Parts: sequence; C-alpha cells; structure tokens
Amino acid sequence: MNKIDLGYDTINLGHGSGGLMTRDLLDKIIFETFSNPYLDQKHDGSIIQMDGKMAISTDSFVVSPIFFKGGNIGDLAINGTVNDVAMCGAIPEFLSLAFIVEEGLAIGDFIKIVETIKETADKSGVKIITGDTKVVERGKGDKIFINTTGFGKVHPKADISAKKIKPGDKIIISGPIAQHGMAIMSQRDGLEFESSIESDTTNLNFLVSKLLDSFGDKIHLFRDPTRGGLASVLSEIASDIQMGVNIIESKLPIDDQVAAACEMLGLDPLFVANEGIFVSIVDPEIEAEIIELMQKDDKGKRAICIGEITEEHPNKVVMHSVIGGKRMVTPLLGEQLPRIC
Amino acid sequence: MNKIDLGYDTINLGHGSGGLMTRDLLDKIIFETFSNPYLDQKHDGSIIQMDGKMAISTDSFVVSPIFFKGGNIGDLAINGTVNDVAMCGAIPEFLSLAFIVEEGLAIGDFIKIVETIKETADKSGVKIITGDTKVVERGKGDKIFINTTGFGKVHPKADISAKKIKPGDKIIISGPIAQHGMAIMSQRDGLEFESSIESDTTNLNFLVSKLLDSFGDKIHLFRDPTRGGLASVLSEIASDIQMGVNIIESKLPIDDQVAAACEMLGLDPLFVANEGIFVSIVDPEIEAEIIELMQKDDKGKRAICIGEITEEHPNKVVMHSVIGGKRMVTPLLGEQLPRIC
Repeated sequence: MNKIDLGYDTINLGHGSGGLMTRDLLDKIIFETFSNPYLDQKHDGSIIQMDGKMAISTDSFVVSPIFFKGGNIGDLAINGTVNDVAMCGAIPEFLSLAFIVEEGLAIGDFIKIVETIKETADKSGVKIITGDTKVVERGKGDKIFINTTGFGKVHPKADISAKKIKPGDKIIISGPIAQHGMAIMSQRDGLEFESSIESDTTNLNFLVSKLLDSFGDKIHLFRDPTRGGLASVLSEIASDIQMGVNIIESKLPIDDQVAAACEMLGLDPLFVANEGIFVSIVDPEIEAEIIELMQKDDKGKRAICIGEITEEHPNKVVMHSVIGGKRMVTPLLGEQLPRIC
Repeated sequence: MNKIDLGYDTINLGHGSGGLMTRDLLDKIIFETFSNPYLDQKHDGSIIQMDGKMAISTDSFVVSPIFFKGGNIGDLAINGTVNDVAMCGAIPEFLSLAFIVEEGLAIGDFIKIVETIKETADKSGVKIITGDTKVVERGKGDKIFINTTGFGKVHPKADISAKKIKPGDKIIISGPIAQHGMAIMSQRDGLEFESSIESDTTNLNFLVSKLLDSFGDKIHLFRDPTRGGLASVLSEIASDIQMGVNIIESKLPIDDQVAAACEMLGLDPLFVANEGIFVSIVDPEIEAEIIELMQKDDKGKRAICIGEITEEHPNKVVMHSVIGGKRMVTPLLGEQLPRIC
C-alpha cells in the first residue's frame, strides 16, 4: 500500500473536509485496507445482526510518542478496546474506528498506523465496520488520536460481576507488570534512556475466552490494569466491593530490566501502565487449574496468584512485603505518566 | 451541578491519569450526570441486550469554537451521532461517549458541555452507557474533542439502500440549508461578523421514525448533509448509484440572512455544513404525502422536493437555475470551512 500516490506527503485540512480529498483518502487507504461487507456499505453507519447480551466499550488513544518499541498507537487502539470488551467476559467482534489527525502528519506514518490496525484487528478476529476521519490545524492536536468502540457477544458461560467476589477469592495476574509504561517512558522526550523494554501490547480475547470455556462462573472478575497500573485497578476493586485486597510483594511478576528502569526514574511499578496483562479474581477452588491453563498460553506463561480478597481492612489494598512488613497501597492520585495510552 | 467543588478550576493532566483524580472527575461529573443502570456498572465496558439488526455509527467532534449560537460541541456530539444512526433507518438507543480534553479547559466549561450532552441525549431518548476521558497537555489539543458511537435497532419497516434508488425517485430536503456552517463561521476567529444565525443542530430520529412508520420501504435513502454540505452528499449519491441527480435551484430552501452571509464570504451554500436537516430519496408515488407529513413536524416544517434522480448525466449532479440555465455541481475538493463539526 505504500506505493499509493495520494498526491500529498502529509495530511492536510482538505482531508477532513468531507469533500473529494476526504473521499480520496478514505477510498485509497481506509476502504482499500479494511474492505468488508459492513464497511463497504459506505453509509453514515453500518448495519449488523446482533442477538443476545452484548458488551460495548470505548477508548480514545492519545499515546505519545505514536511509534514506540513493541508497537504503535494503532496496536494500542485495537488491542486496548478488544481487551476491554474481553474484560466484560465477551468475545469482541466489531470495532468502530475514528481518527483525529493533526495537519502535517506524514501520509507514510498514517499508512503505517492503518496497516498496523488492520493486522492487529485481523489477529484478534475483529472487523472494522464504521469510521470517521477529522483533521485539525497544526498545533491543535498531536499527530494522531484514535478512538475505537468495540462490541461483542457476552460469552455464554460468563457471569462477570464484582458483586460475586467474596473473601478468600484468589487474585491471579497473567504476566509481568509495568512493561508498557516503561517502554513509552524510555522514548519520551527529555526522558529517553537506553533500554530494550518493549510494550506488552497484545490481545487477550482468546485467552479470556478459553478461561471462560473451562471455568465459566467461577471467574468473578476480569480487569486489565492499564492507565494507573495495577495499584489503581486493585484500589478500585477494593472500594467497589468494600472488602480488602491482600497482595504479596514477592509474587508480583516484573522483569529485572523494567524494575531497574522504574527505580532509576523513581516510579513505583504498581502504578505504571500495562497493556497486555489482566487480573482475574476467581473462586479459590479453581486457583491451581486456572493458573495451569493460563501458563500453557503464550499470553499467560507467567500467570501467578498474587494475593486474595479478605474481610480485613475493607476498601484497602495491603501489600505484604518480602521481609514480613505490610504497607497500604494507595491509589494513584494525579498524573504519573501522562499520555501513556 | 455547578456547585460541585472539585478543588480545581481547570482540567489538568491528573484528570487523565486513571487514578483518584480521574475517579473524582468521573464520580462527581460524569456518573452523577448520566447515572443509569448500564453506566453504573462502572466496568471497562457495558453490557446491553440487543436483538436483531442494529445500526452503528461513530463520529468525532472537533468543532471550533466549542460554544456557538444555537449550541455547543455537546449538542453536536449527541445529535450528530443520533442522526447518523437514524439515517441508517434505525432508532438510536445507546451511545458511548469519549472525551479528549486539553489541559487548562475550565471545569465550568466542561460541566456546561456535560450538562448539554445530558439534556440532548434525554431529548433524543438515548442513554450514555460507557465512556472514556483522556487529557492531553496544553497546546496538544484544542479545548475538547468528543467521540460518540451510537447504536440502535433498525426500524422494522426500514429498507434503506442506495441500490433501491431508480430514475424518477424524488429528492426531498427537510429544511433550509447552510445554517450550521454559517453560524460557526460568524464566530470564527478573524472572521467574526454580526449575525443572528443559529446552528440548526437538532435530533432527527423521531421524524425519521415517523416517516418509516408511514412509508416503510418506499423510502430508499436518508442522508444528512453535514461536512461538505448538500453538494457533497448529492455528488456521493450520484457516484454511488451511477445515475444523475437533478436539482432545481429555486426550490432550495435557504434563509435570507444565511444566503447574504454566504455571499459576503464568497461561499457557496451548497457546500456549507448542516446539522439539523436531511435528504430523503423516495419513490415518486409518496412525494406529496411524505412532504405533507414532514411539514406537520417541527423538524420538517419547510420540507420540499428539490429534484429527482435521472438516467441522464450519470454520476453527475446538475442544478437547473432560475433563469433556465444548467450548471454542474462538483463536489467540494478540499477544505472550505475546517472544523465545522
């Protein structure tokens, strides 16, 4: 597709006009790339058949820089929403895709992102069925922002609800924390440092679906600890269920390089964003089996139980340290790492 | 709601962190305003029951200025997507809502927009069921951008498809053109002029539904001529159906004040954006009846037939002028009025 001649090297305001230039951009890049019977209706919207309980989730992606080790804003925009739909216990199937492009974005960069979106959507088995493209003047945006809204049928065996969580439930994490945030930080203007840390952005829908096939309503909650990190997600859960959350520091999976980078920048990895891991809160009777099943999957190789729900210290997350101490994990207050996703 | 004390006068980066400040903003403004059983799940997404053919449409809104005569970006974000779903022949029911806010936006402005969104959604009978809020640094956005994605059930009698259009079909417009675009232009930096022109932003879903109740599959197409104006929509239709479109200049409804403003700025009203009108292409046998029904509705008071589909000049839109001449209406090429919606 890189050979397409649009007659322009960069996106300009005309591409957002709704006129011929918009149509040209859509026809040569968007429709050409994503062609499917839904999108090809080329109407103001798309018609799909849906039956039953559907999960819907929306996210805007404003990550900076837009290209980083392990991915680009296009991967995030697809995986992020695919995963949010999966976290509802659903099987993502359709996505809408809306761009806000800053005038001056290189057409080559735009095409690269669109191609990534296509590959990433294909990998997750989701179709782009409707979209929108707006262009804002130079200095009124930042290269490109992407919104995706995803839908999918709730898994027939899923019964995900914080209300089902009870004391003794186990907290399972699917993989090592803080990778995405540290990959972005290592390339952030003014903070760059040498590292080979890659974003963990990936789709979690197939693994989630497999777990639901096997364990159904024994899985009480799925959450992906993105913005705000693991600490924020656990704090939210504790406050939603008005019970306590106990986690064991020594169990938290983290790569040495990521831990070292966090230390260097003075960041607590518990607050650093993730993109390709999730937390599940499950009935204690399936603890061993679910970890075993997760570990057989590429996306869950390092799955581990990091703690449990308790009646003690309601609304609070408490971390038990290696040397036997306890500390309260407070949720992130303000911004630690802006525009991480 | 204006009495809410967030402890901040403006949105700052912390509100986009995913931490406590984000939660505070969401709890005190978003959840407080839109509370409904779907949104109150406060999960990564929302679960709804859907059965049958659903229409889905997404749009990002980047209008500048964000407050203008006749509305603000909040009205547009709801009405725009509600109308796009309606144009698919569907009854909009649910919306997702995603904000990208520039650091420094006054909390008062944010609240005003959120309140407008609530009122506008209520008027259209749609529920906000899931959302997202991101914050970008000062100078990396422009006050606020909003994405909405809408869904609704296809009307049981609807059979909307450009494939059904045939020569002789009548083109009906629901009201006067170019109002929204000229309302925005009159307040655009550097171009301000005195006028009382108001945006025509409004919801069209109830009128569309009423028309489908009465005329079902005799209505072949609905389109709302937003960005790019009436000319761009008619050109797209002509090229999609590979037939000609004839329109009669003297029939085009336009307010004197709007026509004068267009002349002053050298703009062709055919290319100026609309928000509250739509075009329907219908079987000629219902022409008189559909106009009569539309005229009884506040949103269609000035409905009129502006032309018809023809076998002559395929792919082209031809306007027949008052003095008997003909001119080709070419689609808008690039940008006439950036960021009009």
